[in-house]
Amino acid sequence: MRKKLATLSSLLLIFCTVIAQKSDSITLNKIAYNVLENGVGYENLRYLCKKIGPRLSGSQNAEKSVWATFKMLKDAGADTVYLQECMVPAWKRGDKEIATITAGGKLKMLNVCALGMSIGTGALGIKAPVIEVKNFAELDALGEAGVKGKIVFFNYQMRNELLGYGYRDAVAYRSNGPSRAAKLGAVAIMIRSVTYNLDNNPHTGATRYDSLVKKIPAIACGTLDANWLSNTLKTNKNVQLYIRTTCTQGPDVKSYNVIGELRGIEHPEEIITVGGHLDSWDLAEGAHDDGAGVMQSVEVINTLHALGIKPKRTIRAVMFMNEENGLRGGNKYAEVAEQKKEKMIFAIESDSGGFGADEIGFSGTAAQYEKFKTWLPLFQKYNIYNFGNSGGGADIGPLKKFGTALAGLEPNSQRYFDFHHAPNDVFENVNKREFEMGAFAMTAICWLVSEYGL
Amino acid sequence: MRKKLATLSSLLLIFCTVIAQKSDSITLNKIAYNVLENGVGYENLRYLCKKIGPRLSGSQNAEKSVWATFKMLKDAGADTVYLQECMVPAWKRGDKEIATITAGGKLKMLNVCALGMSIGTGALGIKAPVIEVKNFAELDALGEAGVKGKIVFFNYQMRNELLGYGYRDAVAYRSNGPSRAAKLGAVAIMIRSVTYNLDNNPHTGATRYDSLVKKIPAIACGTLDANWLSNTLKTNKNVQLYIRTTCTQGPDVKSYNVIGELRGIEHPEEIITVGGHLDSWDLAEGAHDDGAGVMQSVEVINTLHALGIKPKRTIRAVMFMNEENGLRGGNKYAEVAEQKKEKMIFAIESDSGGFGADEIGFSGTAAQYEKFKTWLPLFQKYNIYNFGNSGGGADIGPLKKFGTALAGLEPNSQRYFDFHHAPNDVFENVNKREFEMGAFAMTAICWLVSEYGL
Repeated sequence: MRKKLATLSSLLLIFCTVIAQKSDSITLNKIAYNVLENGVGYENLRYLCKKIGPRLSGSQNAEKSVWATFKMLKDAGADTVYLQECMVPAWKRGDKEIATITAGGKLKMLNVCALGMSIGTGALGIKAPVIEVKNFAELDALGEAGVKGKIVFFNYQMRNELLGYGYRDAVAYRSNGPSRAAKLGAVAIMIRSVTYNLDNNPHTGATRYDSLVKKIPAIACGTLDANWLSNTLKTNKNVQLYIRTTCTQGPDVKSYNVIGELRGIEHPEEIITVGGHLDSWDLAEGAHDDGAGVMQSVEVINTLHALGIKPKRTIRAVMFMNEENGLRGGNKYAEVAEQKKEKMIFAIESDSGGFGADEIGFSGTAAQYEKFKTWLPLFQKYNIYNFGNSGGGADIGPLKKFGTALAGLEPNSQRYFDFHHAPNDVFENVNKREFEMGAFAMTAICWLVSEYGL
Repeated sequence: MRKKLATLSSLLLIFCTVIAQKSDSITLNKIAYNVLENGVGYENLRYLCKKIGPRLSGSQNAEKSVWATFKMLKDAGADTVYLQECMVPAWKRGDKEIATITAGGKLKMLNVCALGMSIGTGALGIKAPVIEVKNFAELDALGEAGVKGKIVFFNYQMRNELLGYGYRDAVAYRSNGPSRAAKLGAVAIMIRSVTYNLDNNPHTGATRYDSLVKKIPAIACGTLDANWLSNTLKTNKNVQLYIRTTCTQGPDVKSYNVIGELRGIEHPEEIITVGGHLDSWDLAEGAHDDGAGVMQSVEVINTLHALGIKPKRTIRAVMFMNEENGLRGGNKYAEVAEQKKEKMIFAIESDSGGFGADEIGFSGTAAQYEKFKTWLPLFQKYNIYNFGNSGGGADIGPLKKFGTALAGLEPNSQRYFDFHHAPNDVFENVNKREFEMGAFAMTAICWLVSEYGL
């Protein structure tokens, strides 16, 4: 009898699971329909890119974007919208950078930009012989004798075949190039832009200085210019590079994370965070990086509200400030969560561009991952084929110490580094449907976690 | 003892499988490295698009593309390259189409193109009142009384939320619109272009005529014009549409499939087909449709040859002629295979654009599908996350009757219909890495089938 009861209850469980999956599938259909047919995210992105534009931390535009997204979250139907103060660095690029090569009696302008957080050269600029190294090993082999008083040109080509890891591999030259070269007496550095593409867009991005080493100016040049210079150095002696940058670093200024919530109706204390970063570099509109991510996060609120879905747990869309050159917003968010003892059960970030998403990466306990994966079949028809076992993002990273399960929207990223931190990261390069399918995925996963917990 | 032996042999089998997967993984790495670092496919595609251009069946450009790809296959290292004759239709667009709307005493030009295989209006054109219908139900409701002597404007909006099925759903108006309207006495039709995008690119594509009904001219207009006309019809009476097209249909002309092989060294009689279609519509360069597919197929040969890999089974790259308006090449290929009693074990087609691929669809027996799926883990790091249980393509479709297992490369297709059959389907809209990751997937899957059979 007991066995029969057990069998019956197993059957009942299977039956209930099937019914639940069926009903979840219907909800996901509604979410997709609403995002694709009635979504406001893409037009919000247009506004952010075209009416506001670049949003470097500490800039007037960043301030404007705070109020614009505050309004967007209100309009989307968030029941609470508020700002979370944080202090951010106020690095400024200054004048348009100048870089010229003198070789064989001729002069050529290069297409360059200062790396973010770099010091300037001073108004008169710096002129010095330029030497090329392909990597740090070549730099170290030259030693002080070969480097002192020179400008080091790091011509490290981003490695295509490393697939998803090409950026992580190549970005070391942007991050550590200045200090590695300064340690050997270099007076400035220039890197080959971190992109697979062959063009003349210089790509910026943060550099950092080792506190024990002298700070020297750092710029990036386009990859076509990098190839040209490399060839020029092969056939010319005493090639001189002149650089002029007027970057400055002011005192920190006040800024904000922008937060909008749909309070949970059953477990409001359990918080699901969905976000991207509101700041961008100053050279472009920050459409993929990360206008797309923040506007997808607003769309999560907009979609659930439009469908009249009341989440069981609290869903909180966060527009993080200052991911690019400080992560002050991300750190502040975690700090406040700790003070308030908030129960951060799950966070998902979109900061890999508004491209067609085919994967969500997940980091949590084995049991959480198993539960998470049971939802994958619901996503197949929407082109999401994989829930990878590693996920998160820079801004939600600080939540890890609370044991929060973290996830990241992972688009098919083959095009990302064509635009990343470069002047062509503009609205026109974000495809509506690709952006929207990402917004769908974020909404659907937040709703599932709000419904079933983790 | 027998049990021990069984256990031992199981362990040995597992051990061998692990070793094989490890060695396969190394081969796939080499393939990816070669495609990304030394590939010629993207430059081949540039040549096909920029030096030859549109390749409508029966045109001089189509002929040129036959000889160009013949040479590319030779250069790629195919051990046999040959042409397979087939007769193709010789439809010609004629003069640039004209369409004007007269409403409220004003005249507006529309951005239109004739549908492929449409008849022309004659040199003087056709002018008639235009009526809008949203779908066939509305057309039929109007009946002969409402339709006779009119030009029917099918304003069916491609349905975003149908995801992968939006095209199949909407294309019925392009295919069947003329005959459905002619049956009720219409004198011509115009469809809203089959695209999700809001722009003024008219999208062509084949229409077909029911042999029992009078043939009438058929054109497509851009979606912005479609919206404008729909609004105009709401507020104006007696809106007239003038259409002038001079399309002609000549007698069939001789053309070719272009075929290049790497003969198998163990089972040369077992044939693996990898292909795309060489012809394109005449309005653009046919970069995504399907320059990408044919150039990826050449790249399969190029990559294996460059790596010195001798396939166990024969790998045959086929540039099919006339997929767009006749499928004569695909049918001929199957016909010859039948005559020669060729053993067609597997065929894969790439005809969904050169976008980032995340799926390969497969149609075969359950046992074949199980075997196929054991290879999926090898593809995860290359962003291929799913081997779906339905796949193939128009050109390889006729092989189905031989029991050939069929597969299709399935890119993340959110952008496809922005370009499909439209003037903006040009080389610049194909991303190098996206194209190459597709070429990698095609090469890897052909190699695995050649190595292990199905």
